[in-house]
Amino acid sequence: MLRVYGDAHSGNCFKVKLVLHQLDIAHAWTHVDILKKETRTPEFLAMNPTGQIPLLQLDDGVYLPESNAILNYLAQGSALLPSERLAHARVLQWMFFEQYLHEPSVASARYIVRYLGRPAEHEQLLQRKLADAKKALGIMEQHLASRAFFVAERYSIADIALYAYTHVAHEGEIDLAPFPAICSWIDRVRVQPHYVGMDG
Amino acid sequence: MLRVYGDAHSGNCFKVKLVLHQLDIAHAWTHVDILKKETRTPEFLAMNPTGQIPLLQLDDGVYLPESNAILNYLAQGSALLPSERLAHARVLQWMFFEQYLHEPSVASARYIVRYLGRPAEHEQLLQRKLADAKKALGIMEQHLASRAFFVAERYSIADIALYAYTHVAHEGEIDLAPFPAICSWIDRVRVQPHYVGMDG
Repeated sequence: MLRVYGDAHSGNCFKVKLVLHQLDIAHAWTHVDILKKETRTPEFLAMNPTGQIPLLQLDDGVYLPESNAILNYLAQGSALLPSERLAHARVLQWMFFEQYLHEPSVASARYIVRYLGRPAEHEQLLQRKLADAKKALGIMEQHLASRAFFVAERYSIADIALYAYTHVAHEGEIDLAPFPAICSWIDRVRVQPHYVGMDG
Repeated sequence: MLRVYGDAHSGNCFKVKLVLHQLDIAHAWTHVDILKKETRTPEFLAMNPTGQIPLLQLDDGVYLPESNAILNYLAQGSALLPSERLAHARVLQWMFFEQYLHEPSVASARYIVRYLGRPAEHEQLLQRKLADAKKALGIMEQHLASRAFFVAERYSIADIALYAYTHVAHEGEIDLAPFPAICSWIDRVRVQPHYVGMDG
């Protein structure tokens, strides 16, 4: 059976949880606590040298890291991943946008506020992350202003990748009110079949 | 005909140039100068709201951004992109590694040194980037110690994505001598059929 090493309150891990539920894929989940440095042990680094979660273990024991690579692996051939050439490339386009511009700002702000307790010595960094988050969210808002979903007008792993940290952006002191198209899109994601929340 | 907006001395753009040459795909190239802020004009932002190069324009005028999404689009069905499910996911794994851990450190160090002239006010940031670059290169070194290429023992767009900034790491004051497996891999990439350099 597939096994995920992760923490469902990490957005990157939640992506995998949501896809597994929506595709109804049997799996086991091993909770890994970043704050307790459980991703820094020699045992974990032997499984994934980058020391990151989520990490997927396949049936034959092989490990696959990187949340968005895992999503592509799990969703291949399903309704969550368009197979048409340009649509597939667009899904990847938004997933690379997520890891390069969105996660480093939106998720980092949340980490500083929620997990580190917004310490004074990180305030300057937090302000920089909040400014970058606004830019990333602005690009999403512009795209969603005329679209229901990110790619090909259907719900896909591109939406899941971007939803993961966006729907908990408020935990990083990010106000989504100035982004009405994003708020409507969040509502649309929440009513997708077999949706499950971070706590679900 | 396909058109690329880019600067071949940007590693992200060079990836696209190399794939286009190795797959012998006819294309036109429009040079865009980041330092002259040509990616910040209203015209360019209308084509790509993130203001990044490379940007691929398809035959029908549609734009596709994100270097690694472009590589997947161009290489689909070719020898540069394995179609087997796990191998394909592994290619993506290394491409997400590249955009999340490698490019932000290795490429940033090069940008500060080569393009900004290593100004004193960026020295602290540069040292942080160099430390992060060492970690990213250490993970690559460990992987390549027992492999010829990143995925499935064959040259793929995963190698191209990681090669782009690695082979010019010295321009960011990064010494590759402590990474002999990376140096051998660079030599293997350089002799691939239809290889072309940044200046080629």
